[in-house]
Amino acid sequence: MAVTYELIKTCKQTGARLGKIHTPHGEIETPIFMPVGTLATVKTMSPEELKKMEAQIILSNTYHLYLRPGHEIVKRAGGLHSFMNWDRPILTDSGGFQVFSLSNLRRIEEEGVHFRNHLNGSKLFISPEIATEIQNALGADIIMAFDECAPYPADREYVKQSLERTTRWAERCLEAHTRKKDQALFGIIQGGMYPDLRKQSVDEITSLDFPGYAIGGLSVGEPKDLMNEMLEATTPFLPAQKPRYLMGVGSPDALLDGVIRGVDMFDCVLPSRIARNGTTMTSSGRLVVRNAKFAEDFGPLDPKCDCYTCTNYSRAYIRHLIKCDETFGFRLTTYHNLYFLLKLMENIRDAIRQDSLLDFRNQFFEEYGLNKPNARPF
Amino acid sequence: MAVTYELIKTCKQTGARLGKIHTPHGEIETPIFMPVGTLATVKTMSPEELKKMEAQIILSNTYHLYLRPGHEIVKRAGGLHSFMNWDRPILTDSGGFQVFSLSNLRRIEEEGVHFRNHLNGSKLFISPEIATEIQNALGADIIMAFDECAPYPADREYVKQSLERTTRWAERCLEAHTRKKDQALFGIIQGGMYPDLRKQSVDEITSLDFPGYAIGGLSVGEPKDLMNEMLEATTPFLPAQKPRYLMGVGSPDALLDGVIRGVDMFDCVLPSRIARNGTTMTSSGRLVVRNAKFAEDFGPLDPKCDCYTCTNYSRAYIRHLIKCDETFGFRLTTYHNLYFLLKLMENIRDAIRQDSLLDFRNQFFEEYGLNKPNARPF
Repeated sequence: MAVTYELIKTCKQTGARLGKIHTPHGEIETPIFMPVGTLATVKTMSPEELKKMEAQIILSNTYHLYLRPGHEIVKRAGGLHSFMNWDRPILTDSGGFQVFSLSNLRRIEEEGVHFRNHLNGSKLFISPEIATEIQNALGADIIMAFDECAPYPADREYVKQSLERTTRWAERCLEAHTRKKDQALFGIIQGGMYPDLRKQSVDEITSLDFPGYAIGGLSVGEPKDLMNEMLEATTPFLPAQKPRYLMGVGSPDALLDGVIRGVDMFDCVLPSRIARNGTTMTSSGRLVVRNAKFAEDFGPLDPKCDCYTCTNYSRAYIRHLIKCDETFGFRLTTYHNLYFLLKLMENIRDAIRQDSLLDFRNQFFEEYGLNKPNARPF
Repeated sequence: MAVTYELIKTCKQTGARLGKIHTPHGEIETPIFMPVGTLATVKTMSPEELKKMEAQIILSNTYHLYLRPGHEIVKRAGGLHSFMNWDRPILTDSGGFQVFSLSNLRRIEEEGVHFRNHLNGSKLFISPEIATEIQNALGADIIMAFDECAPYPADREYVKQSLERTTRWAERCLEAHTRKKDQALFGIIQGGMYPDLRKQSVDEITSLDFPGYAIGGLSVGEPKDLMNEMLEATTPFLPAQKPRYLMGVGSPDALLDGVIRGVDMFDCVLPSRIARNGTTMTSSGRLVVRNAKFAEDFGPLDPKCDCYTCTNYSRAYIRHLIKCDETFGFRLTTYHNLYFLLKLMENIRDAIRQDSLLDFRNQFFEEYGLNKPNARPF
C-alpha cells in the first residue's frame, strides 16, 4: 500500500493540524514525535519498551546503517523492520545531514558528495541515486530525498545555490526511487534563514509532488525565534493534504511551537542523549537526577508521570545507577524522557481536538518554567 | 519468618540434592544459579526481565553497596528489595572477597581489615561486626559471615591461620547479627586446597550452627579437578538439612560437577560478563557472536533455545549491535546467557527428580563439546 496522509482537523485557536499517516506498517497519529534509532536500535531500549511507551514510528539513520552493518546485510535480513524486530512504521533520513555534519574532507559536486567515513577515514561517495538505493534496500515506510543541510550562519548566495542543487537532487531521487508502492519519498525544503529562499525552495520542491515534505536546515544553532520565523515562511505554502516533518527538533518548547506553526512530525536524539547524561524532562521542568541533592530523594523523577520509570523507581536509585555508569539507569532515564515527549504529543493532539492548543501551550510553558528568564528547556 | 531449607530428595545416580529454601521473599528451588547484581542491578537487565527468565534469587555485593550508594541510604529506602524494586529473595556476600581482591594496601588484623577504597583510595576498615551491620541494613534474605578468602596458591600455615581467624570472625558475625528472624546468616567454609584444613573448617564452622553454609576459597584460579577434590573433602561433612552454596562458580561444567558433589546454590558474574564481550553459551557450546562469520547469519544464537533473545533476534543483528557498542546488544546476550544457566539448573533439577543426573551430565558435556580436548566452557 502507498503511504497517505489524512488531515482530520485544525485547531481553531492555533491552526495546528490533527492527522493520520497510513503506512504499510500501520497508522501514525500526528502531530508525532519519532524516537531516533540511529543504528537500528533506539539506544538502550527494546522494541517492546518502545511499544509500551506508545512510540508509533521510529527513525533510523541511513548514513550510519550504510557504514554498519551495510544496507545489503539489512536487505538480506528482510529489511530494517525484520532486522531489528520492529513491526511499526520506520522513517529513514537520507544520510545528507550526517555526510555534512560528521565526515571530514567532504567535497560537494553536482553528481554527489565525496567524503571520508567518520569511523575509519576511508573514501566514500553518496549521490541522490545511491542514497535512494540504500533507503530502498533498508525498506523504511518513509524515506528522504538526499539534500544539503546548509550550515548556520551561511551567506545568501551559498544557501541559494545549495537549495537549487537540493531541488535537482530531489528530482534525481524521485527518478531513482524503485519502491513507490510501499515507501513514501519525502522532499526536503531548504533555504537557510532567508524567507524568500525558503519560499523558493517550497515552490521548487512541491512542484515535484512528493507524498510528504520535510523542513531541513533548521535547529542548526540559530535562535529559537529565528527558527519559528522560518517555519512561518515555509509551512503556509506547503500543500495542506501532505504531512510536514521538521527534522532534528525535540525540545518541548520547540515541539509545541512547531505544531502551532503547522508541523506534523518531529525527531531528535535530544531526549535519549540527555537521558544518558542523567538529565530528565519533567512536568515542572528540567531535572538533573545525577545531582547530589537527589542522593536520598526516594520520590519518582516526576510525581505527575505514570511511566514505567516513575511508577517503580526513585530518584535516589536512578542517581545511584547513573553515578555508577550502570546501563539500567540509562534505560530508566531514556524510557522516561521518550515517554515524556510522546505523552506531550498525545496531550497536544487532545488539545487540537478541543481547539485549545494555545491554552495548553501557555499552561505547559508556565509549569515547565519556560516563561522564566533564562529558562532552560533541557 | 526465618529462612529454612527443605531437602526434597537426592538423585540415586549421583547423590545430588533437590530442595527448597523458604525465605521472607518466597521460595527458591535448588540447585539454583543466582545472577549477580553487584551494584543493586544485574548489569543491563530489568527486574521484569529477570522474572521473565525465572531468576528466583539474585546476589548483590556488600562491599560495592557500602561504597556506593552507602548502606544507610539503602536502609532509608526501605532496604535493598525496595531500593532496586526486586521483591524476590536476595543474597548479599560479606564484602570479604572484594576487600581481598579489589583493594590495595590491605592489612589484616584480628579485629578486621584495613584497606583502601578501590574507587578513590580513601582509608576504610571492615570488621565482622561492621560487615554484619551493613548487611543488616541492606536487608537481604541471606547474608554471609565476614571471611578471608585465601589466595591460590597459599602455603598451608597461612591457610590454617586464616581459616581459624575466619572461624573466630564467624562467631563474632553471629553475635553481631540483629535480624535473625528474617535474615539467614551463612557461615563460610575455607581451608584452601588442603583437604584436612577443609575438614577442620567444616568442623569449626558447623559447630556454630548456621542456617546454611557457603564454600569459599574455591574458583580462585585452581585447576577444575582440584576444585572438585576440595568439594569432595567438604560437602560430605556438611549437615544434610542445611543448604550449601559454592561461591563464584558459573561455568556450565562446574555447575554440573558442583551439584553432583552436593552443592545447592551458585553465583557468578561469568555469564553476564562474557555476554558484554559478545560471548554466549549455547546448547552446542561457546559461541562468540561478535565474530565476523556471523555478519550475515540470520539464525538465532542457539536454535534450541526458546528465550526472548533467540525467539526474536538474529546473530547478525546481535553482532551488529555489539560491534557498535549498542546497549541493546549487551542486553540481548546477557539475557540469553543468564537464561541458559537458569534453564540448565532447571534441567538439572528435573534430572535429579528422575534420578538421572549422571546421564544428563554426560549428554550435556558431549553436546556442549566439553569432552573434546582443549574444550573451552566459556
